Amino acid sequence: MSDAIHDVLGVGNAIVDIIAQADEAFLQLHDMTKGGMALIDEARAHALYADMGAAIEASGGSAANSIAGVASFGGRAAFIGKVRDDEFGRIFGHDLTSLGVHFTTPPATDGPATARCLVLVTPDAQRTMNTHLGACVDLTPADIDADLVAASAITYLEGYLFDPPAAKEAFRKAATIARGAGRKVALTLSDSFCVHRYKDEFRQLIADHIDILFANESEIEALYGSADIDAAADDLAAQVSIAAITRSEKGSLLISGSERVAVAAAPIDELVDTTGAGDLYAAGVLFGLSRQKTLAECGRLGSLAAAEVIQHYGARPLQPLATIG
Amino acid sequence: MSDAIHDVLGVGNAIVDIIAQADEAFLQLHDMTKGGMALIDEARAHALYADMGAAIEASGGSAANSIAGVASFGGRAAFIGKVRDDEFGRIFGHDLTSLGVHFTTPPATDGPATARCLVLVTPDAQRTMNTHLGACVDLTPADIDADLVAASAITYLEGYLFDPPAAKEAFRKAATIARGAGRKVALTLSDSFCVHRYKDEFRQLIADHIDILFANESEIEALYGSADIDAAADDLAAQVSIAAITRSEKGSLLISGSERVAVAAAPIDELVDTTGAGDLYAAGVLFGLSRQKTLAECGRLGSLAAAEVIQHYGARPLQPLATIG
Repeated sequence: MSDAIHDVLGVGNAIVDIIAQADEAFLQLHDMTKGGMALIDEARAHALYADMGAAIEASGGSAANSIAGVASFGGRAAFIGKVRDDEFGRIFGHDLTSLGVHFTTPPATDGPATARCLVLVTPDAQRTMNTHLGACVDLTPADIDADLVAASAITYLEGYLFDPPAAKEAFRKAATIARGAGRKVALTLSDSFCVHRYKDEFRQLIADHIDILFANESEIEALYGSADIDAAADDLAAQVSIAAITRSEKGSLLISGSERVAVAAAPIDELVDTTGAGDLYAAGVLFGLSRQKTLAECGRLGSLAAAEVIQHYGARPLQPLATIG
Repeated sequence: MSDAIHDVLGVGNAIVDIIAQADEAFLQLHDMTKGGMALIDEARAHALYADMGAAIEASGGSAANSIAGVASFGGRAAFIGKVRDDEFGRIFGHDLTSLGVHFTTPPATDGPATARCLVLVTPDAQRTMNTHLGACVDLTPADIDADLVAASAITYLEGYLFDPPAAKEAFRKAATIARGAGRKVALTLSDSFCVHRYKDEFRQLIADHIDILFANESEIEALYGSADIDAAADDLAAQVSIAAITRSEKGSLLISGSERVAVAAAPIDELVDTTGAGDLYAAGVLFGLSRQKTLAECGRLGSLAAAEVIQHYGARPLQPLATIG
């Protein structure tokens, strides 16, 4: 992989987060499943926004957050995702390119606005997400720049993207090109609802295309129908080169062949907002892999990056991760 | 003032902040005066934004921040300021109205975009601001709702507004209506550059219209040409009912007649971003005055609100101030 121009290329939803505090009653009133992600239409996005509290805006998107993290570690990163040519689209583009991320997917010039995710953070720092995909649904296979994929050591795909039909096609196209070019393909399962919705397709996708898999415990349970992580680990080890299973404050488990490496969560002073924890964990692992680090070191970098991002609002690091590694 | 519908009405620039970290070299490269506020045109706003790092967006504006603070304390608050009918305008409006603030100034339907302030936060937590006033320059005397001013116990004006000719007129109109209705008029001098630019006009304005004055030490020095706070205090006491002079980490001095009350800064765990410190101090004092608190208690509320806002990015409180008072 030494001839790669980019260490990691992310393919995912291009989203701006609108982040506000909310109490449990607000979630109940609006029929939200705490801790999850729901896709909402434009009308509900407007209605929820009108009801929610004062907010801050920050670029988000799961794979995009990870890519921002890789760049913040000092990695050579790129991103493919669809915005509209509007204010949020400009914000999203700026926040990636200002980190040195190669991001040239052409914005849509008509159709829905740039995607927004209404993030409600409860007093326990848990985040509940409501995503209006907007322009993201216009990501098509034509947006997958084959040269860019072939020039990237790892192509990282987010499970959230695996929903709109054209995006699914784009997803498979990127994976096929990457593997064809002798590169690695990484996937995060993103959310147990994604896995439940497309369980068989995800299993097939993993078997056919994936080298590096990221998942949390509930996603693994959704995929295997069992909470037995040890059994899942053996199965995963047979299917992918590396699997990383996150376990919130219990840290993570990295799996490769017969190797099992348990990594502790990094200590924090104050838990503020868990948004982006998994995304930044993936950033640390992906950056570590691109630097040929050991599994234990990859996991340590993931834990450090996750610890940074959960101590403030917003899903991207506020301090350069290169200084905390 | 018991018949007032609103405790505090703010009149100021309606701005969305774009906040990024920057080092001292960035400020020097772009000829910025650290700690100050500069007005910039659209071309410079675009150029600076392209050069600055990944950012977060949050509603700002000096008087608007104070009004958000008053509402967060539980006060009945209102705001007059000009946005455009664009994404940032909707964000600005949402962030005030979601706090219960009465905000009905009609957005401009053409002309420049909603104002933005590029805020660079250096590692010492100091903020340097670059404001493109955009739609704010279209605030005119016609936007000053006379009934709203007359129904507000205190009308609070920001010195920053005292620059575009129509806004200056709007400023004087609001002050005249408020006094005519037997209400109080409060002013913040905002920035020493404002004072230097319009020193004689500000002195006249204070003498003619102002009951409650907010300033920091450098603004007082700009106004009086002397750093002698004690001498300034005596002069201020002769001109306004109450003056509050902020002194950063040294706290503040409240002045009324022969009374001089020194208030300590509230303790903090970590200084992150000083943006909004003065605005939130004013919020605490204004809320306290609206509740007939003593000067010492008003100052204490100001110190607490300022301490909240400097421990995170963004110029508005992230936790309800009613719970910290």
